[in-house]
Amino acid sequence: MHNWRHDSGDAGDKGLIDKGRHAPTRRELLHAIGVMGGAALLYQAMEAMGHARETQFAGPPNLSGARPGASVLVLGAGLAGMLAAYELAKAGYKVEILEYNNRPGGRNWSLYGGDTYTELGGATQKIGFAPGNYLNPGPWRIPYHHRTLLHYCKAFGVALEPFIQLNHQALVHDSLAFGGKPQRYRELAADWDGNVAELLGKAIDNKGLDSTLRAEDRDRLKEALRRWGLLDKDMRYVKGLRSSRRRGYDRPAGGGVDGAPIASQPFALSDLLDSGIAELIAMHMENQHQTTMFQPVGGMGMIGKAFGRQVAGKVRFGAKVTKIDQSGGAVTVTYSDVASGAVNTAKADYCVCTIPLGILSQIEVDASPGMLAAIAAVPYSNSVKVGLEMRSRFWEDDEAIYGGISFTDREISMVSYPSSGMHSAGPAVLLGAYTFGPASYKFAGMSPEERIATALEMGSVLHPGRYKEQFLGGAAVAWSRSPFTLGCCAQWNEATRKEHYQTLVAVDNRLVLAGEHASYIGCWMEGALLSSLDAITRLHKRALEA
Amino acid sequence: MHNWRHDSGDAGDKGLIDKGRHAPTRRELLHAIGVMGGAALLYQAMEAMGHARETQFAGPPNLSGARPGASVLVLGAGLAGMLAAYELAKAGYKVEILEYNNRPGGRNWSLYGGDTYTELGGATQKIGFAPGNYLNPGPWRIPYHHRTLLHYCKAFGVALEPFIQLNHQALVHDSLAFGGKPQRYRELAADWDGNVAELLGKAIDNKGLDSTLRAEDRDRLKEALRRWGLLDKDMRYVKGLRSSRRRGYDRPAGGGVDGAPIASQPFALSDLLDSGIAELIAMHMENQHQTTMFQPVGGMGMIGKAFGRQVAGKVRFGAKVTKIDQSGGAVTVTYSDVASGAVNTAKADYCVCTIPLGILSQIEVDASPGMLAAIAAVPYSNSVKVGLEMRSRFWEDDEAIYGGISFTDREISMVSYPSSGMHSAGPAVLLGAYTFGPASYKFAGMSPEERIATALEMGSVLHPGRYKEQFLGGAAVAWSRSPFTLGCCAQWNEATRKEHYQTLVAVDNRLVLAGEHASYIGCWMEGALLSSLDAITRLHKRALEA
Repeated sequence: MHNWRHDSGDAGDKGLIDKGRHAPTRRELLHAIGVMGGAALLYQAMEAMGHARETQFAGPPNLSGARPGASVLVLGAGLAGMLAAYELAKAGYKVEILEYNNRPGGRNWSLYGGDTYTELGGATQKIGFAPGNYLNPGPWRIPYHHRTLLHYCKAFGVALEPFIQLNHQALVHDSLAFGGKPQRYRELAADWDGNVAELLGKAIDNKGLDSTLRAEDRDRLKEALRRWGLLDKDMRYVKGLRSSRRRGYDRPAGGGVDGAPIASQPFALSDLLDSGIAELIAMHMENQHQTTMFQPVGGMGMIGKAFGRQVAGKVRFGAKVTKIDQSGGAVTVTYSDVASGAVNTAKADYCVCTIPLGILSQIEVDASPGMLAAIAAVPYSNSVKVGLEMRSRFWEDDEAIYGGISFTDREISMVSYPSSGMHSAGPAVLLGAYTFGPASYKFAGMSPEERIATALEMGSVLHPGRYKEQFLGGAAVAWSRSPFTLGCCAQWNEATRKEHYQTLVAVDNRLVLAGEHASYIGCWMEGALLSSLDAITRLHKRALEA
Repeated sequence: MHNWRHDSGDAGDKGLIDKGRHAPTRRELLHAIGVMGGAALLYQAMEAMGHARETQFAGPPNLSGARPGASVLVLGAGLAGMLAAYELAKAGYKVEILEYNNRPGGRNWSLYGGDTYTELGGATQKIGFAPGNYLNPGPWRIPYHHRTLLHYCKAFGVALEPFIQLNHQALVHDSLAFGGKPQRYRELAADWDGNVAELLGKAIDNKGLDSTLRAEDRDRLKEALRRWGLLDKDMRYVKGLRSSRRRGYDRPAGGGVDGAPIASQPFALSDLLDSGIAELIAMHMENQHQTTMFQPVGGMGMIGKAFGRQVAGKVRFGAKVTKIDQSGGAVTVTYSDVASGAVNTAKADYCVCTIPLGILSQIEVDASPGMLAAIAAVPYSNSVKVGLEMRSRFWEDDEAIYGGISFTDREISMVSYPSSGMHSAGPAVLLGAYTFGPASYKFAGMSPEERIATALEMGSVLHPGRYKEQFLGGAAVAWSRSPFTLGCCAQWNEATRKEHYQTLVAVDNRLVLAGEHASYIGCWMEGALLSSLDAITRLHKRALEA
């Protein structure tokens, strides 16, 4: 029993301040272990210290002892490629990066007012957002346990701010629930807990769980359910000030004469089941979405830019790789200059290739049959994101929704409200669509203008009356039409993992692959970075053995 | 079924952008209704618009028509008093505020390095925090639905940033659970949901709920429980990658060769019951603690300072009220100058008194017997808050805890991590104790230095090895020893509400009380502000009738 609500009556021990000598910090210890024993031992040490479970990251790699003059060619200036180049250069390698785009970052990218984006098929968007506003077409949030990314953000001076994932005041819309009327997450989630608690309480009373529950736990569980589910003294989840404490009031408490609150009426279980709230709660509680999440101040693309500054002068932009050759005791990469069409080659002792598999499978790669099969085996997901700039923050002013996500069963999936600039004046950009599955291909088949208009139409179910009226302009990115990735991210399954994953990540002669596709944290920047660190650590070891 | 996980297969309606005329905004409509009909009608209108449930606030009050020259004396320059003064002055009243302290804000207050605080009994603390660091002795967080406070923060230029309440990575410590070893909130909360889901699933299978659950809901509920609780296909909550998705992994996913995650082992139900996790979840889900919460950039006291700027020149500081007289068709307030001891009087047509009841009950007040009884009837809570400045943000660097609260059954109740400056270098200030009940009186009985040392000792159970080593200095405020409140806030109960509340808030001749004690949102700034708006609206009406 915790005394933030009830008093424990514990005798408090009077403390004395320990002024002992400075003990080695955890970081100091781990660094020492890492220098001595490498990543696997380091991870074991972290586990033994009881702190390790949130990440495999144990600090920057130790790549000491590089042979002077040894060179590495890195393909792709996304996060994986730039991190590889940064750490390899720090270790003493001569490094060059070839990058298709004219900017660093790859899928880490923000679209600002004044930017231009041309997708496959030729449709070009000139973004019209107000200064400071942006759409993150790719990654948009960073979990607290993505320690590699957080480490390098700190090291490279990327300012971070909280990203709001779960917002109890945001809306949940399902066309088949509540007559299609959106409801507040807080009401649905409160009523889910309340209903579950009441039903389980009844089951205990009905002796339906006597063979399962230890006798001594039954009453304790009932009391815990009562408190957790805000049940009344008779273990019922009913309309009242108690249940309203979570779901909200018909009239909230106030001051003065009419200060007394008026309770609200909970929803029926069948309506809750229609709403899909149980799945939504589960999604919000996932490791990847737990508090506290972050985003860079000014747009996710700030990370790509910061990484880019660390490898400045090492990147050849506008270079489209067409061939990777490993003959003759070196790696020779053929590329064409996107602007001029001129064909060139670059040569190095080793190569770290971070090109997405959907692109790489179309390039002539000199590698083992197993690696070529692995490269060909993994399909990529697709998704479309639409940013909608609105004149004012009506979701804040009218509805007290600050950040977070409203969900709908329409094909846009969600509307997400900006986590930055809260309480400021408009204009502001909503994430107006983040599509999955077949909806992504449908949206990708539309022109950018049609995607924006459709997102506006579909999203207006959440904010009727305001949504279209406040609309200023939009931007839409369909990842299947992205010339530099041809999709979102790698979609492994159990079978492909088993058959191809270890072959894909293994050092193949002088070549190693890196990127989110070479990790178990697919579609996340953290996966790209951890993959990169692992790849260059093994490549370095190979280079030392050569 | 929502297509953020599954595809709904809905036919998407192609949208056209509505370029119709500018409709009146909700705010414009509500303002018009407010001007016509007052607060009650306004609230009804808000309800009819389906938006009202999060607040009774409907915009600033409409106090037009004040008699030229009419004057109001406001007692107390806390938020309630300053808002009353601000709105009354705006309406044309001549306003003066008498304030005991030498600063505006009252309980809205931050202690910074260089500040000095002397409590009853004479103990004086000179705060030694680094620049920018602070302790909020009183309020420290703002719910999204405290719309009055948010409105005036915006109007008065108070910058706000997210306050992190729930942190899945924070710790839960109970001396009787897990051998006294703190556990992560995420593991306990995940396992609670999983156990509840599995048990309820079993009860459905055992027919224990056949008389309660509609047949058509049984299978749907089971499937929802399976998804919500991360049960396996046999409806069991077991060790596996599925349950680890929420509770965390023994080895989290990574990149490259060792990228595959390793699942963690869930806790047993009896351990969860020991931990008190069900109550903790309930506490976090309460309306007052739901996302998105806020805090002012730079400390809660920024609000008091901003309100103070709005009433600059109207406040007499260091004025201790000793008598309130209503004879002779005016209100005459006697006060002594705290510095000199000189006794003075101030006179006005009306008086808004925001003095906390524990102080007011010791002052000679000329009011009805009912109001005097009400003033005497309401006890005040006590609490002690301790700020501990630490050399580095070890909770972030070592444990990936960014903001939020760790809980313990020790008398400090909790340790809260700063929601500002995340990812920056130290030093930083933890809230090292926030006591309740008897623990508060025990802590209040200690010297400030003892409180700090005790908080350090008790809190080290959460971060052994780092807590004492990183400690730089502290600050401690015991509200029962606060000379300007003699406690935290009013503690109404059902009986006192029934007997005294309406008498307490009623206009008594020329006097009206305001403050959190005159509201149903006790202990929150929002209650003080809504009470103030209600009080001055009724006082203004009385003045117009006079």
